[in-house]
Amino acid sequence: MPELRRDPLTGRWVAIATERRKRPNDFRVERMAADPVEQCPFCPGHEDMTPPEIFALRPEGSVPNGPGWNLRVVPNRFPALRVEGALDRQGHGLFDRMNGIGAHEVIIETPEHAADLASMDEHVIVQVLAAWRERMLDLERDQRLRYVIVFKNQGGTAGATLDHPHSQLIALPIVPDIARREIDGARKHYADHERCIFCDIIRQEIAEAQRVIAEDQNLVALAPWASRLPFETWFLPRHHGAQFEEAPRSEYESLARMLKGTVARMNKALASPPFNLIVHTAPFAEEVGPFYHWHVELMPKLSRVAGFEWGTGFYINPTSPEEAAQVLRAAAP
Amino acid sequence: MPELRRDPLTGRWVAIATERRKRPNDFRVERMAADPVEQCPFCPGHEDMTPPEIFALRPEGSVPNGPGWNLRVVPNRFPALRVEGALDRQGHGLFDRMNGIGAHEVIIETPEHAADLASMDEHVIVQVLAAWRERMLDLERDQRLRYVIVFKNQGGTAGATLDHPHSQLIALPIVPDIARREIDGARKHYADHERCIFCDIIRQEIAEAQRVIAEDQNLVALAPWASRLPFETWFLPRHHGAQFEEAPRSEYESLARMLKGTVARMNKALASPPFNLIVHTAPFAEEVGPFYHWHVELMPKLSRVAGFEWGTGFYINPTSPEEAAQVLRAAAP
Repeated sequence: MPELRRDPLTGRWVAIATERRKRPNDFRVERMAADPVEQCPFCPGHEDMTPPEIFALRPEGSVPNGPGWNLRVVPNRFPALRVEGALDRQGHGLFDRMNGIGAHEVIIETPEHAADLASMDEHVIVQVLAAWRERMLDLERDQRLRYVIVFKNQGGTAGATLDHPHSQLIALPIVPDIARREIDGARKHYADHERCIFCDIIRQEIAEAQRVIAEDQNLVALAPWASRLPFETWFLPRHHGAQFEEAPRSEYESLARMLKGTVARMNKALASPPFNLIVHTAPFAEEVGPFYHWHVELMPKLSRVAGFEWGTGFYINPTSPEEAAQVLRAAAP
Repeated sequence: MPELRRDPLTGRWVAIATERRKRPNDFRVERMAADPVEQCPFCPGHEDMTPPEIFALRPEGSVPNGPGWNLRVVPNRFPALRVEGALDRQGHGLFDRMNGIGAHEVIIETPEHAADLASMDEHVIVQVLAAWRERMLDLERDQRLRYVIVFKNQGGTAGATLDHPHSQLIALPIVPDIARREIDGARKHYADHERCIFCDIIRQEIAEAQRVIAEDQNLVALAPWASRLPFETWFLPRHHGAQFEEAPRSEYESLARMLKGTVARMNKALASPPFNLIVHTAPFAEEVGPFYHWHVELMPKLSRVAGFEWGTGFYINPTSPEEAAQVLRAAAP
């Protein structure tokens, strides 16, 4: 019997339709041709193919916008938003608009073209997380901005246009839809119970141990109760904290280790699937500290999300989170 | 300068990022290999490849589950939900669940394997709309069910697994997310203004004539102000009505003509893109008559929706709805 499950945070229902279940090796991973290294704008020696860098990790003596770097952050060449200008908020009859003020940056995570999270050293992943933090803290100073999203698309079918390991950051003058709904849901739970709903979820999940993929003293990785997609995985800090960018170094170290381990497990169990990784942090300058809880979502791209699903907000997931967690636990790299 | 726009119904913001704009012929339409007719379970003579029919349009004397039909409705062979059983609602700590009670049906729209909405006769499309209505009215009698979604995926990259023209219907014991948000938004507008927000949008759009693709005395087709995707198109009845399944025949005739015309325009301007079509109607047994307004959404699949976009609810659309409407108006078939 298929089961309907409700996400306690957002109220979203999903169908866990085990009759439609595929075994892990039934998922067809779609691949696209690899980019040639010679034309990669993110490879060392090609620094003139990107806009000038905003931030970089470089050994002493190395020259900005030249080779020798360990990590670079550059503006997106085709930005969805622009840093310059005023918001110029306007009504237009029933409608509202404002200028697309914001930032759209690319974090080039490593000079190595063919690396991925499973092959990168943990300390390199920690550097990436710390670079996200640096850029978030810098952008928070801009009074026009309200929210920052960091995300990583790996693989063409997950939306990546380049193979070289990179993540992206978009800072917005509004709080986007899903962040707003998470905040509203978490605020309501706090008003009702005086507790953070994420802390409650973590406590229940660790006690049940059905959907936990990995845990250590700082973090837990789990397949959420109302998973929208097969093998959807959330990483949550065990100690309450609303902002990713304020997390202690020890949590970045745990997150780096757990991201590397989980991607390695997915590579083994699911034939190196394309994926999307999204950091959910608190909005700037909004009092959500007691009830919001930062987390990272990892979504392997194993099935096509048809227009139906994002057109209705109703997801049909052929793999239960209990099975997903079991498969990933068993796939130790 | 990119622009942020807010959808007045749901409050969702999108970025219209014209710097990232592609011209219509820059969109790459992905295609998949066609299914062989000999193995198509929806072709005449293959009726034993589907579960027994629930509904059919057949000439007198033709035998159920045999050939000779004009349209068939059958249960989905791999249903996301089951008709039999009780809901058995249960809490599980913080979480909620219920049995996946509902219906999942397939409407086989025509015996012709290679037809599409642009090539089908208008009266055949009217038959399809009338079949949707019949099934909706029948399922509304089931007290366990709250909502019905009709949708159509055309083309493999839009989520279709078979080429033969078909649509699907899913009846749910809950009101899905996006329907709930549309209803909440429309209810608020009605409480504030004593007017239907959709009627207000239609009035403004017709007066401005910037985003209208087609109109007649019954219906208007438009590119919505806060379009999430390039060439997103909505079809709205000009006369207020909450339920698709209660619409008069004349509106089905207009909708059939306008769907056929719009798909033909998209085929011409955008090289026959895959698409998703979704019917938004009022939930069963909920008093939304004065403020909800049925409509149909058509989303050609021209760009990859990356996890970022459905993970944040924030869409970056490279084509303005004004340009989309202009291109489609100019592409008269």
